[in-house]
Amino acid sequence: MMAANSVRSDAKKIVIIGGNACGLKTASRLRRRCPGYDITVVEQGRYLSYGACGFPYYVGDVIKDYRSLMGGAALRDEAYFRDVKGVRVRPLTEAVRIDREKKAVEILSAQSGERESLSYDTLVIATGGVPTLPDIEGVDGVQGVFTATTVDDAVAIKKHIEAHGVKSAVIAGGGFIGVEMAEGLVERGLDITLVKKGASFLPAMFDEEISLLIARHMTDNGVKIITGENVAQVLPDADGNLAGVVTESRRKVAAGLLLVTKGFRPNDRLARDAGLETGRTGIVVNTKMQTSDPAIYAGGDCVGCTDIISGNAMNLALGSLANIHGRIIADNIAGDDEVFPGVAGTGIFKMFNYTAGRTGLTEREAVKQGYDAVSVIVPGPDKPHYYPTATLIIIKLIGDRQTGRVLGAQVLGAGEVAKRVDIIATALTLGATADHLSKLNLAYSPPYAPALDNVIVAANVLKNKIACLGRGCSPIRVKEKMDRGDDFIYLDVRSPAEFKNMRIDHPSVMHLPLGKLRTDAETLPRDKEIIVGCMSSLRAYEAQRILEAKGFTDVVYMDGGLVAWPFEISRS
Amino acid sequence: MMAANSVRSDAKKIVIIGGNACGLKTASRLRRRCPGYDITVVEQGRYLSYGACGFPYYVGDVIKDYRSLMGGAALRDEAYFRDVKGVRVRPLTEAVRIDREKKAVEILSAQSGERESLSYDTLVIATGGVPTLPDIEGVDGVQGVFTATTVDDAVAIKKHIEAHGVKSAVIAGGGFIGVEMAEGLVERGLDITLVKKGASFLPAMFDEEISLLIARHMTDNGVKIITGENVAQVLPDADGNLAGVVTESRRKVAAGLLLVTKGFRPNDRLARDAGLETGRTGIVVNTKMQTSDPAIYAGGDCVGCTDIISGNAMNLALGSLANIHGRIIADNIAGDDEVFPGVAGTGIFKMFNYTAGRTGLTEREAVKQGYDAVSVIVPGPDKPHYYPTATLIIIKLIGDRQTGRVLGAQVLGAGEVAKRVDIIATALTLGATADHLSKLNLAYSPPYAPALDNVIVAANVLKNKIACLGRGCSPIRVKEKMDRGDDFIYLDVRSPAEFKNMRIDHPSVMHLPLGKLRTDAETLPRDKEIIVGCMSSLRAYEAQRILEAKGFTDVVYMDGGLVAWPFEISRS
Repeated sequence: MMAANSVRSDAKKIVIIGGNACGLKTASRLRRRCPGYDITVVEQGRYLSYGACGFPYYVGDVIKDYRSLMGGAALRDEAYFRDVKGVRVRPLTEAVRIDREKKAVEILSAQSGERESLSYDTLVIATGGVPTLPDIEGVDGVQGVFTATTVDDAVAIKKHIEAHGVKSAVIAGGGFIGVEMAEGLVERGLDITLVKKGASFLPAMFDEEISLLIARHMTDNGVKIITGENVAQVLPDADGNLAGVVTESRRKVAAGLLLVTKGFRPNDRLARDAGLETGRTGIVVNTKMQTSDPAIYAGGDCVGCTDIISGNAMNLALGSLANIHGRIIADNIAGDDEVFPGVAGTGIFKMFNYTAGRTGLTEREAVKQGYDAVSVIVPGPDKPHYYPTATLIIIKLIGDRQTGRVLGAQVLGAGEVAKRVDIIATALTLGATADHLSKLNLAYSPPYAPALDNVIVAANVLKNKIACLGRGCSPIRVKEKMDRGDDFIYLDVRSPAEFKNMRIDHPSVMHLPLGKLRTDAETLPRDKEIIVGCMSSLRAYEAQRILEAKGFTDVVYMDGGLVAWPFEISRS
Repeated sequence: MMAANSVRSDAKKIVIIGGNACGLKTASRLRRRCPGYDITVVEQGRYLSYGACGFPYYVGDVIKDYRSLMGGAALRDEAYFRDVKGVRVRPLTEAVRIDREKKAVEILSAQSGERESLSYDTLVIATGGVPTLPDIEGVDGVQGVFTATTVDDAVAIKKHIEAHGVKSAVIAGGGFIGVEMAEGLVERGLDITLVKKGASFLPAMFDEEISLLIARHMTDNGVKIITGENVAQVLPDADGNLAGVVTESRRKVAAGLLLVTKGFRPNDRLARDAGLETGRTGIVVNTKMQTSDPAIYAGGDCVGCTDIISGNAMNLALGSLANIHGRIIADNIAGDDEVFPGVAGTGIFKMFNYTAGRTGLTEREAVKQGYDAVSVIVPGPDKPHYYPTATLIIIKLIGDRQTGRVLGAQVLGAGEVAKRVDIIATALTLGATADHLSKLNLAYSPPYAPALDNVIVAANVLKNKIACLGRGCSPIRVKEKMDRGDDFIYLDVRSPAEFKNMRIDHPSVMHLPLGKLRTDAETLPRDKEIIVGCMSSLRAYEAQRILEAKGFTDVVYMDGGLVAWPFEISRS
């Protein structure tokens, strides 16, 4: 905690490298804490404090004016930081080298070309990330190839589309920004092809069941997806504008725009050159956000963060964390002992009318970490079924069988996803078990949530699985069994009308409505594995319990039902 | 935790009184746990498992068909519970008396008039609540006076409005249901007058600052509010239909409909008559939901719950809790040791385009409980300012100065309120401090949240206050000082354009934009208290720090700024 009412009038020199979220938050907070300090921020670019996460929405024309991405009610320029924040900001100024012995930073002005040395008592490195640029043949001199790193990039992309009447684009990379850009450009009427090396979407973020649903929603909305290869070459037209790309397998895709979104790596060059400890995930910092040199702090996208569940270092480039880092750094420079506890790996993105969010560990990662992981897939309306705006969401919840601890979640759908992600992120950060989650007193009223919130239902289903009352089976495993031709029954327990309307077409499929199961179960074979399915898996679980009560011993239900079935469905 | 894969085939007799959320959840869950048990549910009314919380939306015509309030995809009637759930349900059957010695319930069929005795091994009381009916002169025989307790009530209200072309209504009572009903009826085009005894809206749920904003939003949307008195008398027309009401002060209000929403009290008559322990908040149960007779459980609206923060007993009549209770009761009857941890007092309601939510203790209650309570009022957009759907919400967050523990919150506005309430409800249930809250890794992307979520900003402001960096003053106190004519300066630090556009009109008001404060502070008197104000209190806090750095010693900022100022504002 901070010293009571501390107004410090000692005069230290603080130099901050980087004028975006972390750097400027550090400067502003530190000014409020230590009015006597001399605070200088050097920023390589021309814009300060911009919302890079807003670029897809600017390019997609949801946001009309790029200037609105800067600052809040007032434009945040040099004058603003001088007059309001009492901070000296030097844009278009590159930090070239850190001299730790002399405690000085060599800077280079892009405008005057002059070099200068800024001495510091404490230095803050907030240099963000640099885009990963794959080796693509022919990009030099071709108009229409962009990353989406800076405000200038975002403005140039939009200008290029408008100036050249671009009708089709290729997006290289299937990360958050790639998917968000795809949506934005489809909404503008462009024909989009997304090219990515990996087979799954966001495999570090989502397990396969959810990843497949994400991919399906992209194609349902008209995005063409090419997986298993990168963009290898660009093809210009006679004017030097992009005409198309060629993939590694020599596939040609016509496109007037190529957006390279292969992710970012931490911009740790200055730190490395200065001999500070760095790693795969960026500059290494302790929980106080201090580098291996106690006079140098670092925060934002350029540092590695600890995953609070696995304890692993990870790089999570998010404006939210950069702001939290900045505040902690300022408080520690002011003499506090503020600690950054690490990250839950929470992420969210909009994908047409769907939202996809996640927090904590995936099931895959939980198993890798040695947890006895149990998972459930629970679809349900995000409000009571009778409320007109009730919309479906799917929660995959992952827990530890031994302790009941909540390890992670993935949430997807057209309904209210963000709330459920944040409830679970908060809960797992505070060490909650499935039992805690299942008894939360959440805000209930029909316009906002069903009586039992989706999170509570998912926690109950998880508890059932941990207690071996419910036994589930991933749709991925069911599909594998069908494809292999295993000898089992997929028992669909929905109503005849529902079954007629849509169903899985496979020889293993049998139909017997739940309401008949208590009387007609004897028509089912006792010598075969039965996998029960319904729409959401609630009735299938009920059916599993009914069959077990009747002495059937080899019964499971399919997690998530038809709603979460990412493969083909027959409709009539 | 439950015994692994337990299918119990012993045959116990279970009787459940009440066929709504808690009773039917108990029955359904218990059937899945104990297939051999004999389970009977007796329900006094004709409808089962209905969503009473949906009534305002049915009456307001948001929900068209009352039948959709019952059950899920399928209608939940006797046949459904028999065929699907394997549970015997007896609607239109009253439980008249419990004979604890004989372990039997005397029941009376409304259809046949026959009495019967049902013996039990375990009994569950889930009798819900009964509406509080004030003494109103002349109600007998008058058409058009209703409570909103049962499906029949809801259907009758709607029918009465339509049959008689009702144009105006009086709502007696200003609780959640009263406010929700007011909205529904205004949206239908009715002229609404809300009559309530208390001066504040929902004083047990919201502190005065928020309560005043709630009342203002009601009147802004055309609801007339009469406080300080009850409806005393109804006036019929010649046909015996309601023509108007008379209040205690003999004020007449024309109205074709009177809705009495004076709240509910726990329906504990059977329990009391049977000698079970009951209290002010309903039937007394232990953490296993067992009454003072171990063979009798009770849950839902008829029981008292423990407030997890204060430890006090409270009655929180919510379908969400009733469902959680039902599950715990079933598990305990099945032999588990499931515990209900208590409630956070979370509530939410829709009020025109606003949402009002709350959790934990109010500041008033926290002080009463002996906490050294600190509170902040933090308005802000619910998404980045540049995102088109960004909308304002206000968070009042309450914490304990000694431990930093989060004690409660109230959230109000047209933006995404429910998410913030649920994050804080989850956090305080798990014992979070403001520091925990301020470092949460929440889901960030422009369509969903600002980079620093409103919850995180509120937690930071709370930490600032606890550390005495920020010093706030409630708008209520500022208004009192203005009304008393205290000698102080209200320093508005917004831009000249903002000040011209809207401001507080009072002799104490001075204007000096934040950007001039570092240079022109010397124009301010040093011998007077300065209360700094801006739009949201962010700039005012900055101003407070600047003035303190310049040696001003008596400076505070007004919590929540003009956004949360519930009194008159001059506009030009």
